[in-house]
Amino acid sequence: MNSSVADSADQQATREKLEEMGHAARAAARLMARADTATKNSALKAIAAQLDARRDEVVAANARDMQAGRDNGLDAALLDRLELNDERIDGMIEGLHQIAELPDPVGEIEDLKYRPSGIQVGKMRVPLGVIGIIYESRPNVTIDAASLCLKSGNATILRGGSEALHSNGAIAACIAAGLKEEGLPETAVQVVDTTDRAAVGALISMPEYVDVIVPRGGTGLIERVSREARVPVIKHLHGVCHVYIDDRADLDKAFNIALNAKTHRYGVCNAMESLLVAEAVAADILPRLAAAYREKDVELRGCEQTRKILPDCHVASDSDWSEEYLAPILSIRVVADMDDALDHIARYGSGHTESIVTGDYSRARRFLAEVDASSVMVNASTRFADGFEYGLGAEIGISTDKIHARGPVGLEGLTSQKWIVLGDGHIRQ
Amino acid sequence: MNSSVADSADQQATREKLEEMGHAARAAARLMARADTATKNSALKAIAAQLDARRDEVVAANARDMQAGRDNGLDAALLDRLELNDERIDGMIEGLHQIAELPDPVGEIEDLKYRPSGIQVGKMRVPLGVIGIIYESRPNVTIDAASLCLKSGNATILRGGSEALHSNGAIAACIAAGLKEEGLPETAVQVVDTTDRAAVGALISMPEYVDVIVPRGGTGLIERVSREARVPVIKHLHGVCHVYIDDRADLDKAFNIALNAKTHRYGVCNAMESLLVAEAVAADILPRLAAAYREKDVELRGCEQTRKILPDCHVASDSDWSEEYLAPILSIRVVADMDDALDHIARYGSGHTESIVTGDYSRARRFLAEVDASSVMVNASTRFADGFEYGLGAEIGISTDKIHARGPVGLEGLTSQKWIVLGDGHIRQ
Repeated sequence: MNSSVADSADQQATREKLEEMGHAARAAARLMARADTATKNSALKAIAAQLDARRDEVVAANARDMQAGRDNGLDAALLDRLELNDERIDGMIEGLHQIAELPDPVGEIEDLKYRPSGIQVGKMRVPLGVIGIIYESRPNVTIDAASLCLKSGNATILRGGSEALHSNGAIAACIAAGLKEEGLPETAVQVVDTTDRAAVGALISMPEYVDVIVPRGGTGLIERVSREARVPVIKHLHGVCHVYIDDRADLDKAFNIALNAKTHRYGVCNAMESLLVAEAVAADILPRLAAAYREKDVELRGCEQTRKILPDCHVASDSDWSEEYLAPILSIRVVADMDDALDHIARYGSGHTESIVTGDYSRARRFLAEVDASSVMVNASTRFADGFEYGLGAEIGISTDKIHARGPVGLEGLTSQKWIVLGDGHIRQ
Repeated sequence: MNSSVADSADQQATREKLEEMGHAARAAARLMARADTATKNSALKAIAAQLDARRDEVVAANARDMQAGRDNGLDAALLDRLELNDERIDGMIEGLHQIAELPDPVGEIEDLKYRPSGIQVGKMRVPLGVIGIIYESRPNVTIDAASLCLKSGNATILRGGSEALHSNGAIAACIAAGLKEEGLPETAVQVVDTTDRAAVGALISMPEYVDVIVPRGGTGLIERVSREARVPVIKHLHGVCHVYIDDRADLDKAFNIALNAKTHRYGVCNAMESLLVAEAVAADILPRLAAAYREKDVELRGCEQTRKILPDCHVASDSDWSEEYLAPILSIRVVADMDDALDHIARYGSGHTESIVTGDYSRARRFLAEVDASSVMVNASTRFADGFEYGLGAEIGISTDKIHARGPVGLEGLTSQKWIVLGDGHIRQ
């Protein structure tokens, strides 16, 4: 048997395996959709207790992944993300308890009203069904994703990174045991246990079994999933976030916000990547900001006008305006006014988070209405764009899509609404 | 030049044409998103006035399509759907005025609350952006779709049936004139004026220009669009709707509802296609219902138990349970109890509309919670599943998807929500 025949036989086997998982998930989804709040919360706590009781197993499985990672030459950052220790297991346990405390969105009825025909019409919040989640190295995503899906009444199929295979297997065993304890189907959370890349292809092309895919990882993964998926995708693509300092801004507030948005954390999608400054205040605010950035070793790349004010600033090339640095680098552009800033954001923004600093009421009102992004802010740091800060309790990711869920996706983003009609023998005239 | 080279050159030209339209639509979408309610309403009324003033042109253009349709042997039903006359133009004008009267969803702010950090967080309703609509013969869809997209602040690209090309062109001219009168971009509503089928392929694969596709037409069109689209699709696939008559039903109500759900109109997606009857009441209700159906020439196809009660009922084959007849045909199954009915619906239902007739509180509560469909009803005819009956004012279609919009899609279904954050110099700690 030559190798391509073997490959394709393997791929076929993987596809069949995924279809079996899909079939089981679909059946489990029906049971999960009707599970009551108390049972789901008890299961979350039972999983937490299992994780606590089986720490040694989880750490030992993780040690195998860590050893393989070192043998395969994974870099220090990836190894750090892969590692599970007591502190991180405590974090997962804490996360499970937090999600158990959140209100259950399932079954919530909104806007139930009488219609002239005499029927009552409203909307009831319901689970999406089966959610496929594809992620990369961090094994704690297994718990985060499973617990959000469980609480929102969905079944889920998780496909983690191949480098975390043993860690994810050990966590999956805890989840299955916790589900079983509370009489919920163990197949409500299934972890794909093959490293065959064909598993991703299969998972994203089974609309009969999977209702939505959430890819979490690098741009390469997300672009591939978006291109090839045959089911809807909730995705977070880029975060090219701007802060615009208006000429009517309080410059102290502007200073604090621009500094916080860039330097609070670098490797996060809600960090500011481009600073826009109104011409009239650029010479006032930029030197002060530049000094603060330099103290934190932030590399500055500016437009021509910026470089007149900050002569030792690097030249920003055209590609800088659409770059998500995720690093201590900032591009700076001086703009004529808010309209110029709005044009820049419409052209280069990624639709993630945009903020204006201004003391002007009408401009704040216009910025809020006209900027097309998942979060639009006035006088606040872009770093607030986060499920916890927004009060969602937890998030499965931040969507830059416009359809369905936009911005931080929490429990509600994993649900949909169906219409309900209450009559008493009503017929259509 | 051989024919396939010519084809591909034509396709290339069509693709370029669509990309130009997409580019123009994207620019128009930004202007539409910030158009105020009064301007949008005036534009709707101006379009109505244009239609009224140009009746002769519209009817003349339609006459060309009708003649071509007769020459091409279109059947009477298709010709009827294609025809525009004074009455139908009045209907379009009335529709425009109705949509002008509806509340504008854009800019509506929900749930604005203070967070412990001091910021206020809420959600603002915003247009989706550019909506592509692909539909078949009825030219009045051009006005329905354009007016809903306009009112919800979206730009739209409409691709109607090739048999309605001249009619759609004449309607498009009225729309453009109405938009221009009110200072809105004429490119906010663009009608594809080529019959090249490559236009559909191009329209559904430009995620940079089109945010969502709404296909309206037969199953073939919708399946093709779903399979090939590279942008999200809001679709209505099948309507295999059930009424379940429980053994605790008031049989008079059950009789009225089952009769209305099947016979009020046949060719509609919210008509009942399968009747489920609890064993304990089957012998009471079925003969009475069968007599009423027969009076209306409805063909009955039953399971074995049904045929014991109704001996001259046809045999239902397994494929009948998943059939959307859209015709005076009904399949009937006797089930043991509600659980049996729930299983049947989970297996064969298309997720459109399901109704239970029961006097039992607990069963009504369970049916509402457990049935996975876009509309779930208690003691009401499935025929109520409709945007007007639900109070949406108008609908662009009924979605059987779970993501984003489910059930009747009105103005709100053509919008999304962004997060807004109001601070006063707040930074993340």
